[in-house]
Amino acid sequence: MYRSLITKTLIAGAFMAVASPAFAQTVPEHGVFILNSLLFLIGGFLVMFMACGFCMLEAGLVRAKNTTTQLTKNIALFSIAAIGYYLVGYNLMYPLGDWAIEGYFSALFPALAVMEPVGVAADAVDDLSYAATASDYFFQLMFCAATASIVSGTVAERIKLWPFLIFTFILTSLIYPLQASWKWGGGFLDALGFLDFAGSTVVHSVGGWAALAGALVLGPRLGKYVEGRVIPMPGANLPLATLGTFILWLGWFGFNGGSQLAMGTIGDVADVSRIFANTNAAAAGGAMAALVLTQILYKKIDLTMVLNGALAGLVSITAEPLTPTLGVATLIGGVGGVIVVFAVPLLDKLKIDDVVGAIPVHLIAGIWGTLAVVITNAEASIGAQVTGIVVVGLFTFIVSFIGWTILNLVMGIRVSEEQEMAGLDNSELGMDSYPEFTRLSK
Amino acid sequence: MYRSLITKTLIAGAFMAVASPAFAQTVPEHGVFILNSLLFLIGGFLVMFMACGFCMLEAGLVRAKNTTTQLTKNIALFSIAAIGYYLVGYNLMYPLGDWAIEGYFSALFPALAVMEPVGVAADAVDDLSYAATASDYFFQLMFCAATASIVSGTVAERIKLWPFLIFTFILTSLIYPLQASWKWGGGFLDALGFLDFAGSTVVHSVGGWAALAGALVLGPRLGKYVEGRVIPMPGANLPLATLGTFILWLGWFGFNGGSQLAMGTIGDVADVSRIFANTNAAAAGGAMAALVLTQILYKKIDLTMVLNGALAGLVSITAEPLTPTLGVATLIGGVGGVIVVFAVPLLDKLKIDDVVGAIPVHLIAGIWGTLAVVITNAEASIGAQVTGIVVVGLFTFIVSFIGWTILNLVMGIRVSEEQEMAGLDNSELGMDSYPEFTRLSK
Amino acid sequence: MYRSLITKTLIAGAFMAVASPAFAQTVPEHGVFILNSLLFLIGGFLVMFMACGFCMLEAGLVRAKNTTTQLTKNIALFSIAAIGYYLVGYNLMYPLGDWAIEGYFSALFPALAVMEPVGVAADAVDDLSYAATASDYFFQLMFCAATASIVSGTVAERIKLWPFLIFTFILTSLIYPLQASWKWGGGFLDALGFLDFAGSTVVHSVGGWAALAGALVLGPRLGKYVEGRVIPMPGANLPLATLGTFILWLGWFGFNGGSQLAMGTIGDVADVSRIFANTNAAAAGGAMAALVLTQILYKKIDLTMVLNGALAGLVSITAEPLTPTLGVATLIGGVGGVIVVFAVPLLDKLKIDDVVGAIPVHLIAGIWGTLAVVITNAEASIGAQVTGIVVVGLFTFIVSFIGWTILNLVMGIRVSEEQEMAGLDNSELGMDSYPEFTRLSK
Repeated sequence: MYRSLITKTLIAGAFMAVASPAFAQTVPEHGVFILNSLLFLIGGFLVMFMACGFCMLEAGLVRAKNTTTQLTKNIALFSIAAIGYYLVGYNLMYPLGDWAIEGYFSALFPALAVMEPVGVAADAVDDLSYAATASDYFFQLMFCAATASIVSGTVAERIKLWPFLIFTFILTSLIYPLQASWKWGGGFLDALGFLDFAGSTVVHSVGGWAALAGALVLGPRLGKYVEGRVIPMPGANLPLATLGTFILWLGWFGFNGGSQLAMGTIGDVADVSRIFANTNAAAAGGAMAALVLTQILYKKIDLTMVLNGALAGLVSITAEPLTPTLGVATLIGGVGGVIVVFAVPLLDKLKIDDVVGAIPVHLIAGIWGTLAVVITNAEASIGAQVTGIVVVGLFTFIVSFIGWTILNLVMGIRVSEEQEMAGLDNSELGMDSYPEFTRLSK
Repeated sequence: MYRSLITKTLIAGAFMAVASPAFAQTVPEHGVFILNSLLFLIGGFLVMFMACGFCMLEAGLVRAKNTTTQLTKNIALFSIAAIGYYLVGYNLMYPLGDWAIEGYFSALFPALAVMEPVGVAADAVDDLSYAATASDYFFQLMFCAATASIVSGTVAERIKLWPFLIFTFILTSLIYPLQASWKWGGGFLDALGFLDFAGSTVVHSVGGWAALAGALVLGPRLGKYVEGRVIPMPGANLPLATLGTFILWLGWFGFNGGSQLAMGTIGDVADVSRIFANTNAAAAGGAMAALVLTQILYKKIDLTMVLNGALAGLVSITAEPLTPTLGVATLIGGVGGVIVVFAVPLLDKLKIDDVVGAIPVHLIAGIWGTLAVVITNAEASIGAQVTGIVVVGLFTFIVSFIGWTILNLVMGIRVSEEQEMAGLDNSELGMDSYPEFTRLSK
Repeated sequence: MYRSLITKTLIAGAFMAVASPAFAQTVPEHGVFILNSLLFLIGGFLVMFMACGFCMLEAGLVRAKNTTTQLTKNIALFSIAAIGYYLVGYNLMYPLGDWAIEGYFSALFPALAVMEPVGVAADAVDDLSYAATASDYFFQLMFCAATASIVSGTVAERIKLWPFLIFTFILTSLIYPLQASWKWGGGFLDALGFLDFAGSTVVHSVGGWAALAGALVLGPRLGKYVEGRVIPMPGANLPLATLGTFILWLGWFGFNGGSQLAMGTIGDVADVSRIFANTNAAAAGGAMAALVLTQILYKKIDLTMVLNGALAGLVSITAEPLTPTLGVATLIGGVGGVIVVFAVPLLDKLKIDDVVGAIPVHLIAGIWGTLAVVITNAEASIGAQVTGIVVVGLFTFIVSFIGWTILNLVMGIRVSEEQEMAGLDNSELGMDSYPEFTRLSK
């Protein structure tokens, strides 16, 4: 009988070991780390593909004579972002030690060693509950690059290549990381309760503000606003623009889903799933709102408005893709689509020439999305949201405006009238994108 | 000695706890849920990208004057699918409670709350052995959207935009979900033993039947069949069509692989791997069969046949991508490629004008694929397969035909002759896809 | 007291079972198998998409009159690779039993059953510490196909379609698998200490050597080298070429990251993360090096050089994407970009006509990348690296040269002068890629 008691206890002990919900049924600690890292890697390559989406969207919406330049700017800005964010940005965004003004300076020239050693052992990992540093770096870099992609569309068809590339370096190494640190680096906006899940403000409005500053310093394209009329300058290749939109839509699942930052528990993976579904719903809402509205207003559906409507829907849901229901997500995105239809002609009225509509999509819908957080997230306060929008906006716009202005004074940021008429591909690069379909102007 | 006995037993108990194959070596329950959800998310974004593939394929195969309309239809149908499937379809396909005719009506206006709450705890999840509801919803939605994408290619170049969009809403909210529930909602076709792993019938033939009904009600394009001759109307942009095919090929790994519905055990992940390899083999078989056959029949390889051959190979393997060996998968796909080469001219002989070849690819190869299940799956019966094909086909074709006919009576589904000659981009949208490469007809 | 001793021991035993870092915190054995297989599936579909990237890159860089042929070659070569690698290649690369010369012959006609049975049980799996055989097969196949994709660009615009397809079968069923077995099949180069992580030599230089042999046997395009001058023959569609480059860049995360072959431990997933980050850094370095260098040398940035610079950066890091720091990876890629800028005109000086620049990118940067392993990997020896480069190069070049020569003698590999002037799309296929933008030459 004594024997049997021991055996019984033994079995109970072993059973507890395997069946305890807290241990045996959940994912082991190493598994959480692996799944979180995997989320960053998948999310990261999807967001990386957005660079291709932006490139195709913009290449399709500019005229043939400026296409090679637009392609060059997009592949170059993505490369510059990789270098600028590595050299300065990442360490500036997540300053080592306490978050403080002196943290910036000590972070400016860090060891640049952001990755775990090869074949790292578990006990050498800083935070087993998070993810591999290199996976985080990879994911964060892609957000920084997306910010730069937003700018290139607005200032297309008249900006010189090199000033644009230099501004991209400033944006990706300093402007983006600095303001991103205020929220995502645990800075004062985060402490204030400002909520911006995947970056309607931190990424999209920042790209939009920098683009707006550039458009103001540059001025509109020649012949765009003539005697109070807006002259249409249709894009050369709408299938490319549509391809770009679909690629961006795809990449946004990584953008928003990856921003959950974790996938190692049931709650996290269910949240990532909610985010995927909501992101898709918002894009659909934005596209359909623009489609219906252009039919009503203009009696004809406007494809470029529908594409930008989908993108505005995506931007609108980016600040809070988790808490809405599918229906509310569709509506939040739908408002984004409405914004595009009204904001595009409004900018033209103000003679702000935004070639691809990036300011309505990323800046104005980004502001809307940031405000919309309060609709579904009880932790959000309208005060904190407005503060975040204003602080980030003022900082980014002012610094960008100063940056563009200095570049303009030092080297000139706009091509000559002759060059603009001939097309940037001729004047800047001497290479035509479609040499057999159109003639390279001379 | 007694001590030592206890110790021994203790060690054995602990060892059992960690080494028992049934517990400690398999993935813990939460891990299975996470991995299953992850399969849906990855599969879902890959299938989502198929919407882009269809769009590019179709945009490349229509003439330049109809390209903007084709692009608009594709981005709009994907958005409408998201709304229709959310409002009605998903709940219709998986009726709450018992599967019964009254289930449909109670399901028509459901709570629309298909997602787990934010940060759901494990004990609040309905079925820990499955996956996050939102991940399942996301995945299923993409299948519904794919069905709609199939239709748009066939009816291109002559259909009015709005009737097409309305039909898309009917298809994605009612037709697709209803018939899909018969198999995947656990309905009578499932009970009958009808097998259709990822939807050769449930998705592809349904798209094909709806397209066929549309083509019959619409009639052929002006000038397509003249005095017994078939006038070629070549697509404007074959690189786009090839891009679309490659994207569809890529997306199909998610389409078939995700349909395993599970990835949390060794058997499941090995099955998903088989499916990936077989899916690729079938596509290759279809492409090569069409390539060799067009060389033999026409003395010249026909690229559009090769592209459609690859797609037909993919459709053919979709009803059973798991059980074949690689060689048999290649052959099943190869038959799909042969079907395309013979069915495309056959449809032309019947004066059924299918602009992109979607009926051969999705309907006829879909039927073939559904029948081919019996070759490698011992659980399949030819009777059940034929029943499924016929029931789904009759239902979809009849309801679609009625739908197209009513739309035709109410609002007319075809543009005027003048509009068709001028191109839909001019008459419907006033926006040219390639304004600098071609002239917008007037 | 005795009782309490037992209890204490019992608890200790149970605690050991759940909390032992070696068991309970790491991923269970089945989970490792699933995660490794998942890495192959994700990596595999990303590398599969590279086939699309190569196709778009090449279709954009040839002239309009040869575009349909280039598209056809790319979809066909990918299909042929799937068949050739299945029938012969895979079993040749990983000979069953001991690695020996007779292993090749016994492997030539294997059972062709490379996949686990459907729903395999854990105890029926050969090696639980690796991955599903079908996932491995899927991943390896894509590498084989990539090798073939490299060749098609170099020999474009003048080669007959069928000899190219036959060579592709030889390359994917024999040449690639044989030499790959020397390293990745555990052959003599592996035994020698030759290091080539993801295939700068085994994949990229092999494609490059086969392309070089083809270019030499074919000779340059008509009118390319006239009276000592190099006549530019600009590609017809640079957005397509840029799209292809971005897709290749995306796919490379799967190419290099998947080559870690494991993702089930913290060390492995951190390594995969390092590889993703380094791969991106090297591409950026290559693009920026080419951008800056063409600005300095030619006073104008050359987009096609920037695209090839990014690809050369990717090839350069492929032999060792794990051990470098981000900065060193950027520099290794940067040297690849420099190589492209100097090697492209050098090949022209040698009158070797490489239509898309595949030899500089894949062969020369592939050699550089293989040598560069010694910079960051202490286990590498320069002797072994040189041996691997030379052995693989000699074998591939000689066998390819013989293959091309025999094909030339038997059926002729080059179209007639008239056909070349008219364009291959006319002479070989009778189908124009852009019938409305350009006229099909006759």
